[in-house]
Amino acid sequence: MAFLRKINTKAKTEINTGFGTNTADYGGRFVNKDGRPNIEKRGISFFNRMSWYHTLLQLPRWHFLFLLLAFYAAVNLIFAGIYYAIGMENLEGIHAGNLLEEFGEAYFFSAQTFTTVGYGRISPHGFAASSVSAIEALVGLLSFAIATGLFYGRFSKPKAFLRFSENALLAPFKDGIALMLRVAPYKNNNLSEAEAKVSAALMLEEDGKLTNKFFQMELEYDKINSLALSWTIVHPITEDSPFYSFSLEDFANIDGEILVYVKAFDDMFSNTVIARSSYTLREVVVGAKFIPMYHRDEMNKRTVLDLDKINRFNPADINFAFISAGNESAAS
Amino acid sequence: MAFLRKINTKAKTEINTGFGTNTADYGGRFVNKDGRPNIEKRGISFFNRMSWYHTLLQLPRWHFLFLLLAFYAAVNLIFAGIYYAIGMENLEGIHAGNLLEEFGEAYFFSAQTFTTVGYGRISPHGFAASSVSAIEALVGLLSFAIATGLFYGRFSKPKAFLRFSENALLAPFKDGIALMLRVAPYKNNNLSEAEAKVSAALMLEEDGKLTNKFFQMELEYDKINSLALSWTIVHPITEDSPFYSFSLEDFANIDGEILVYVKAFDDMFSNTVIARSSYTLREVVVGAKFIPMYHRDEMNKRTVLDLDKINRFNPADINFAFISAGNESAAS
Amino acid sequence: MAFLRKINTKAKTEINTGFGTNTADYGGRFVNKDGRPNIEKRGISFFNRMSWYHTLLQLPRWHFLFLLLAFYAAVNLIFAGIYYAIGMENLEGIHAGNLLEEFGEAYFFSAQTFTTVGYGRISPHGFAASSVSAIEALVGLLSFAIATGLFYGRFSKPKAFLRFSENALLAPFKDGIALMLRVAPYKNNNLSEAEAKVSAALMLEEDGKLTNKFFQMELEYDKINSLALSWTIVHPITEDSPFYSFSLEDFANIDGEILVYVKAFDDMFSNTVIARSSYTLREVVVGAKFIPMYHRDEMNKRTVLDLDKINRFNPADINFAFISAGNESAAS
Amino acid sequence: MAFLRKINTKAKTEINTGFGTNTADYGGRFVNKDGRPNIEKRGISFFNRMSWYHTLLQLPRWHFLFLLLAFYAAVNLIFAGIYYAIGMENLEGIHAGNLLEEFGEAYFFSAQTFTTVGYGRISPHGFAASSVSAIEALVGLLSFAIATGLFYGRFSKPKAFLRFSENALLAPFKDGIALMLRVAPYKNNNLSEAEAKVSAALMLEEDGKLTNKFFQMELEYDKINSLALSWTIVHPITEDSPFYSFSLEDFANIDGEILVYVKAFDDMFSNTVIARSSYTLREVVVGAKFIPMYHRDEMNKRTVLDLDKINRFNPADINFAFISAGNESAAS
Repeated sequence: MAFLRKINTKAKTEINTGFGTNTADYGGRFVNKDGRPNIEKRGISFFNRMSWYHTLLQLPRWHFLFLLLAFYAAVNLIFAGIYYAIGMENLEGIHAGNLLEEFGEAYFFSAQTFTTVGYGRISPHGFAASSVSAIEALVGLLSFAIATGLFYGRFSKPKAFLRFSENALLAPFKDGIALMLRVAPYKNNNLSEAEAKVSAALMLEEDGKLTNKFFQMELEYDKINSLALSWTIVHPITEDSPFYSFSLEDFANIDGEILVYVKAFDDMFSNTVIARSSYTLREVVVGAKFIPMYHRDEMNKRTVLDLDKINRFNPADINFAFISAGNESAAS
Repeated sequence: MAFLRKINTKAKTEINTGFGTNTADYGGRFVNKDGRPNIEKRGISFFNRMSWYHTLLQLPRWHFLFLLLAFYAAVNLIFAGIYYAIGMENLEGIHAGNLLEEFGEAYFFSAQTFTTVGYGRISPHGFAASSVSAIEALVGLLSFAIATGLFYGRFSKPKAFLRFSENALLAPFKDGIALMLRVAPYKNNNLSEAEAKVSAALMLEEDGKLTNKFFQMELEYDKINSLALSWTIVHPITEDSPFYSFSLEDFANIDGEILVYVKAFDDMFSNTVIARSSYTLREVVVGAKFIPMYHRDEMNKRTVLDLDKINRFNPADINFAFISAGNESAAS
Repeated sequence: MAFLRKINTKAKTEINTGFGTNTADYGGRFVNKDGRPNIEKRGISFFNRMSWYHTLLQLPRWHFLFLLLAFYAAVNLIFAGIYYAIGMENLEGIHAGNLLEEFGEAYFFSAQTFTTVGYGRISPHGFAASSVSAIEALVGLLSFAIATGLFYGRFSKPKAFLRFSENALLAPFKDGIALMLRVAPYKNNNLSEAEAKVSAALMLEEDGKLTNKFFQMELEYDKINSLALSWTIVHPITEDSPFYSFSLEDFANIDGEILVYVKAFDDMFSNTVIARSSYTLREVVVGAKFIPMYHRDEMNKRTVLDLDKINRFNPADINFAFISAGNESAAS
Repeated sequence: MAFLRKINTKAKTEINTGFGTNTADYGGRFVNKDGRPNIEKRGISFFNRMSWYHTLLQLPRWHFLFLLLAFYAAVNLIFAGIYYAIGMENLEGIHAGNLLEEFGEAYFFSAQTFTTVGYGRISPHGFAASSVSAIEALVGLLSFAIATGLFYGRFSKPKAFLRFSENALLAPFKDGIALMLRVAPYKNNNLSEAEAKVSAALMLEEDGKLTNKFFQMELEYDKINSLALSWTIVHPITEDSPFYSFSLEDFANIDGEILVYVKAFDDMFSNTVIARSSYTLREVVVGAKFIPMYHRDEMNKRTVLDLDKINRFNPADINFAFISAGNESAAS
């Protein structure tokens, strides 16, 4: 692990990233590959810290369905226990040869009440059992009201169906070099007015102390009208780039991270969606070029976007001359 | 098919359309008449590429209802099969003279369980049948939870109830010519702060290679406070227009497309709505003028908007003199 | 009805109102008092022109509930008819002495099926009746899915709970006069970043032809951070105002309309809400001043907003001197 | 209670706060600690002033559940009364030894109808009872439709999960002093593009009359890309600050309030969220410094945010020299 010893003074530092600068306070990367900040919250109770609704919205589909099933089984178990405790003689129409079968009948009576099926072969009798079943039917309906809300919340939650390339590339660009990464929409969605912001977090020695410095990375275009095809986000390594004075080795050794933020308006959700990702400098491939992701179809009637090519690139010569020059002048 | 040989150098090219420039990569038009980009996605599995929720939201109404009915019939068939396999002796109260009637009873018992009607004439008996019916009732309720979400999603999805004229017109405008197209809201909705962007995609020969070039088309007004009546979007063909040096024949022959994007705030949905459309140059009518779409009503109390007039136009003389001049100077 | 004969040439006309200028095309006022544009749409079928969902959202509460009840009664009547047609012998458990009672039993069986109560005293028998009841239960559940969506839509639809003063006032302001109107939030909502736009539509004679001209009315402040109390929107009648050269009589005689548009972010709905209103010149009170709407409470702990004072004003002398001057210079 | 006698004329007054300036009209603080304006609305009926939906959304969870239960109990009581009034002979299958038990059976029949469980042991007979039960089932389903909407509304309502420090601090900052307050997200949410606005409301004597004056407080940074960690909002007390001429005592004695407004985009809700708070001058701690809230974790892999440190600060010397100078020049 090496640190940047001399910063390109022309590079524009970014002060309002929301991350601090004291390296001693940080552990690991700032932003995870999936775009979530690499932060743990403590000091307030789990229940206050947690938004149950959003946790349930973000659960993988099968976990969510399993959870619903487990909840259903557990609720019925509890209510079956209550009916059993009240006394089975209060449930009319039970057919049971032994205690287990009796409990089974109570269990299924509970299920029939909770779901409001209420066949009526078994029915409650007396104040206690009738009250419990009235409560259970209410609980059942409210549970399904909540489930309805959760299903709708899961469906309608705006998500940026965007895929980032696994790697960022140092690619030839015009007469120089640019850092490039690629993003593409992968569902039947329609993104307009996309906007990208890219920053670099570099660890550097200042007054003998390690500090995180954030730099705004100027983009060739930071806005695009329609994000229908792939978008190659290009940061030309000019004099103003924080990477201007980097040598080939620096990309491999320096501890740094490139933070990407893409915002767009999604027609499907009629909402703004946001995607984030991050590349450590070790995830930057030096000397490569993305291969095009789209081509015309066989009938010459449509344009085809090949999503599996998002991270495909070919080796490409890049000219580090100006960078050496940059280093020399930095060293002088 | 002809290509533009000489571009109007004063025209403002647009670089951030989100579409590429290499003509060889494109097939057909960029944007379909209904506003969806003419793009096919490949290289990732159908299930990953598809957003089921949004596909179901966009299904035509009758398809959607038919799908629900088919799902209901299929689910009942499956559960009836399971009850039948478990053994009909586990369903009490069956009245059946033959196997088909027995299966029918199982089928309708399933329907009564799935919808939680649970009349109770037929009721499950024993662990297996009771468990299956408990599961079915849960599945039923969750299915209706999902259906509720889908119905609400279908209703509440913001849509731009905007109709575009079928054709764009080359119409007389002040002392010159303008390209005009018309848009009007057609439902009981209320649009404010409407904004239009129009670009032209023209195929042209550059260094002996065919390229798509995108041009921003300046509009007379690109914003409007209230889109209550029809809005004629006007691109005056001035020196800065990509069409400045076009001859009459060019509109018929050159391969080009005019992309329209309208954004507005819809009071009804309390959301931003977006409409897109596209006109190929062949859909431009040369020398025509839209007839007004609105007039005062019989009682002189309201203004009437005739939506069937959206694409009605009269022939109109346009003066191609300045365009010829443009061509000459372009040729000189 | 009089028309403006000479326009204040310093007044800033507004061209992008979305309303046209040809007076002959207009009937009545542009915008109704409740903010809806005074426009009727024709030329496309009622069903295409109508958004059912939004019509149902905007129905008054009691109409909506009555509609649900009527729908319920009608659906049951239809299904009862079908059961009756199939034959009452297919419904087990009927207790009926005559035909009317028989139909009544079919009707209530239908209601029990549609709501999925399914007591089971009456239950269907045979393929036809069972199928119809299976369909009815499905229809019932889907109807309630739709009703759930409608209720939620009605509740959650962002509405600007803003009340406008009935009248606009010509009030003394600094050394001159200003046109003032007042707006106040009337529910337990919280509006921030409010923004107002006011335009005037005046009918005037131009080249012997009547035309509508729209003018932007400059406001003292057109933005406000928090719309917690009342907001008096002030248009100072300076040299740039369209009303600069108006005489006292002009306000009474000239045919004109003041269009108001207020936009704010509502915390409660977490959404932008919009309110519109309009004042004809006849609704402008000349020489009056709003009385304050808020005062400190008895305990000196809170501020009290009196919503019934929204349109209360006192007579106030205004100095028409500068306006006469304006008229003279306009006449000279 | 003292008032500001001489205002720093370089301080930028803020005119569009939405609050008036006449002190006599105000009672207590402008904004409560929880961010709600300290205003009471009168003069329009309670029902018009109230948004039931939003009141129910803001009820604490247990109150809401209790309300649902109470509503359920009450509805069943009413319907049981109606069935009882119609006559118990119209409910088939009643097992009751006395009047109370009879009423109990009617009560539970009502619950079974309202929830659409409909076991069927008890079932209605005759036109009156059948009609009432058909209505009750409808009411039941519509109630659950409303409950579903309320649950979803409660879950999905965008809330700013932001915690403010209890105190604002007068802390050393660069070579001078700054007023600082701290805000941190406390749930598993992700805020981007946060924006803060801070104003001061100071009571001051002008022409012998007490007036509220609002001042915009310039911030070191008023925007931040990502609000993932804590954000210390810093208002440097420069010559342009309304607090420039304050003495140490003024903070304790002068009647003033600092209003804070934070707006951010919440990924989880895909919506803009807003948080407000306010600090009276008495809640400003003079000479203190926040201690850092985050540090790297034990494994050096993540950053840990300690939410219980949000209001922890250490005493710190601040240099009031420049402020005295300010006072002197103000006095001269």
